[in-house]
Amino acid sequence: MNSFDFYSPTKFVFGKDREKEVGSYVKEFGGTKVLIHYGGGSAVRSGLIDTVKKSLDEHGISYCELGGVKPNPRDTLVYEGIELARKEKIDFILAVGGGSIIDSAKAIAMGVPYDGDFWDFYSGKQAKEALSVGTVLTIAAAGSEGSGDSVITKVDGMLKRGAGSDVIRPRFSVMDPALTQTLPAYQTACGATDIMAHVFERYFTNTTEVEVTDRLCEALLLTMIKETPRVIEDPNNYQARANIMWAGTVAHTNIVGVGRDQDWNSHGIEHELSALYDCAHGAGLAVIMPAWMDFISEHHDGNVMRLCQMATRVFGCEMDFEDPMATAKAGIHCFREFLHSIGMPINFAELGAKEEDIPALVEKFGLGDGRTGGFVRLSSEDVAEIYRIAAKAEL
Amino acid sequence: MNSFDFYSPTKFVFGKDREKEVGSYVKEFGGTKVLIHYGGGSAVRSGLIDTVKKSLDEHGISYCELGGVKPNPRDTLVYEGIELARKEKIDFILAVGGGSIIDSAKAIAMGVPYDGDFWDFYSGKQAKEALSVGTVLTIAAAGSEGSGDSVITKVDGMLKRGAGSDVIRPRFSVMDPALTQTLPAYQTACGATDIMAHVFERYFTNTTEVEVTDRLCEALLLTMIKETPRVIEDPNNYQARANIMWAGTVAHTNIVGVGRDQDWNSHGIEHELSALYDCAHGAGLAVIMPAWMDFISEHHDGNVMRLCQMATRVFGCEMDFEDPMATAKAGIHCFREFLHSIGMPINFAELGAKEEDIPALVEKFGLGDGRTGGFVRLSSEDVAEIYRIAAKAEL
Repeated sequence: MNSFDFYSPTKFVFGKDREKEVGSYVKEFGGTKVLIHYGGGSAVRSGLIDTVKKSLDEHGISYCELGGVKPNPRDTLVYEGIELARKEKIDFILAVGGGSIIDSAKAIAMGVPYDGDFWDFYSGKQAKEALSVGTVLTIAAAGSEGSGDSVITKVDGMLKRGAGSDVIRPRFSVMDPALTQTLPAYQTACGATDIMAHVFERYFTNTTEVEVTDRLCEALLLTMIKETPRVIEDPNNYQARANIMWAGTVAHTNIVGVGRDQDWNSHGIEHELSALYDCAHGAGLAVIMPAWMDFISEHHDGNVMRLCQMATRVFGCEMDFEDPMATAKAGIHCFREFLHSIGMPINFAELGAKEEDIPALVEKFGLGDGRTGGFVRLSSEDVAEIYRIAAKAEL
Repeated sequence: MNSFDFYSPTKFVFGKDREKEVGSYVKEFGGTKVLIHYGGGSAVRSGLIDTVKKSLDEHGISYCELGGVKPNPRDTLVYEGIELARKEKIDFILAVGGGSIIDSAKAIAMGVPYDGDFWDFYSGKQAKEALSVGTVLTIAAAGSEGSGDSVITKVDGMLKRGAGSDVIRPRFSVMDPALTQTLPAYQTACGATDIMAHVFERYFTNTTEVEVTDRLCEALLLTMIKETPRVIEDPNNYQARANIMWAGTVAHTNIVGVGRDQDWNSHGIEHELSALYDCAHGAGLAVIMPAWMDFISEHHDGNVMRLCQMATRVFGCEMDFEDPMATAKAGIHCFREFLHSIGMPINFAELGAKEEDIPALVEKFGLGDGRTGGFVRLSSEDVAEIYRIAAKAEL
């Protein structure tokens, strides 16, 4: 196990109708003038924004609002939000929505007190301060409600880049699983895939003797495998929604990842897909992550044993002691079958991606002659090979 | 799944030699005048207190000290600490040691700004404010380094009672697994038992459809079952110590307990043993917890299935589909075997308790005609029966 810091100060307020209490948490964490940040019209149409405003009114908190955040949130709206927040002397950003909206809110929160261009924080600079952020979560997926991370897309060049800092960890996150019940099956499955990917990125490690985080990773994966099909079958299954929603948060607080090196190549490789095709991040991961597993199974001896651990403990495969590679492959196959069963694409055609774009994707990935990744160090050619495996994958 | 709040704002600083950084964290969380609180002489003899003082000096933080905390920490020293802290205008309590010392530090922290008797907080009153507490943990057991709980023994009557409030959650906890390597095998095993008990108290629930916390509980139990024997065999196994230490903290942040009713009867029933005999809390739990499982297996249909889940998922028993009770009993037997294998007592004689004291223990438990517990509601007669099962238990 490696040395680590673990810090997850967000207060999670979980359960049915708890969005009605949001004003009290804004007050508890010192907000007096709020920017309500949201996406398309659904949060307005469903009455959620009105519920939030009513609660803010009840606690004497004033607010203005900025909607229009899109999936793969754009820098252009962030600049607009920063300008508005400065003009209105906002001291608290309240994100009402899913990961894209929370990520956009975090970007605005860092940008307001910063003299330079907020994009600096998405180009390697560390933010030292930010306005307080709170969330009312409506999609279980990104884990942004409990993380210090944010991913924004620069429209000029469609560059998708991340920032990370403790200063953008939400002060509180209100999580009502019932709010996710209106989410269509496809988006629900995308979210579930993203959650599982967040765990897998941490699960595949070269750090030995981290039993506790291994087991915690497996706990979340087992939860997702049980609960996701229940939600796909019955979108109104509150209990299954609740388990998925909380698993998604726990996954991305990093409690399942501390003390170990992590990989994160699949996320990086996927980002180029969603940036180019504007597909859902989860759908892209469904195509890339098993392809990455296929690739690594052939390129490092130790990987086979880790894939066998996944296959047996997570997917319930029998260990083939005479042929561990067969077990590893069985585990990957189970993962693809699971993804297919919940309606996810498993190859380029199903995703709407094109094999002929692979050189452009690799170029944009921007690795050049370098290598990247925590588990297996990939070259540009390796990345291209993963895209090729992903392009052609079949059950 | 029930609605819940989850709030664990403690910053955990984990790894070898990280106690050398303690001054920077006191400073980060606003401490200027520190009370260093510790136990017997071992923290002084080992040089740990000097290391702490050196780090505080480096950051220009002044301090005074109060040692002498004993296992099952007493109210008498708390009163002394409150008086000292007020006189010295202390603004930060730094606990250096295990759960007893941290619990004592929390009591002092609540007592200093409070006009009345600090014991009020151990008699049902909720603390609204407290001095900041930080910890340098030396024993993996109680989980107090990440919890809002404290247990203190009132010398007058040897009453052992608990307090709970978010205001006493440590601001930071420095956790160096190497510091636990000098702990004798018996105390190490007591700590491991306490950690497992903290999980079991949450595992046994009547709340249905909490897959995520079920699985997280099992993750920690599996970790303890793997790592504890490795530490008993080799006290200097840093990696196993690290896994146990972190599992103990995760267990008691309540992340494995949110969204469900919890039981906590075994802890209550054990507290009377350690209060009367001054035995280690973990040793008392080793005697009581399996006895409680024996008792509940006979007194509630649903319990058998939950015990079967424990038996199969945690202890690797085969499910006997023709005779679930046999599986339940096999799980309890595995638990007692495990406890015995790490040197824990499994009955009154091995603990040093006496069967003839059972009426007095029940009397002190103080249930009267009431009932208690979250999983199975126990009467005084039930509690007596659990003590009787515990008294006579054999492998």
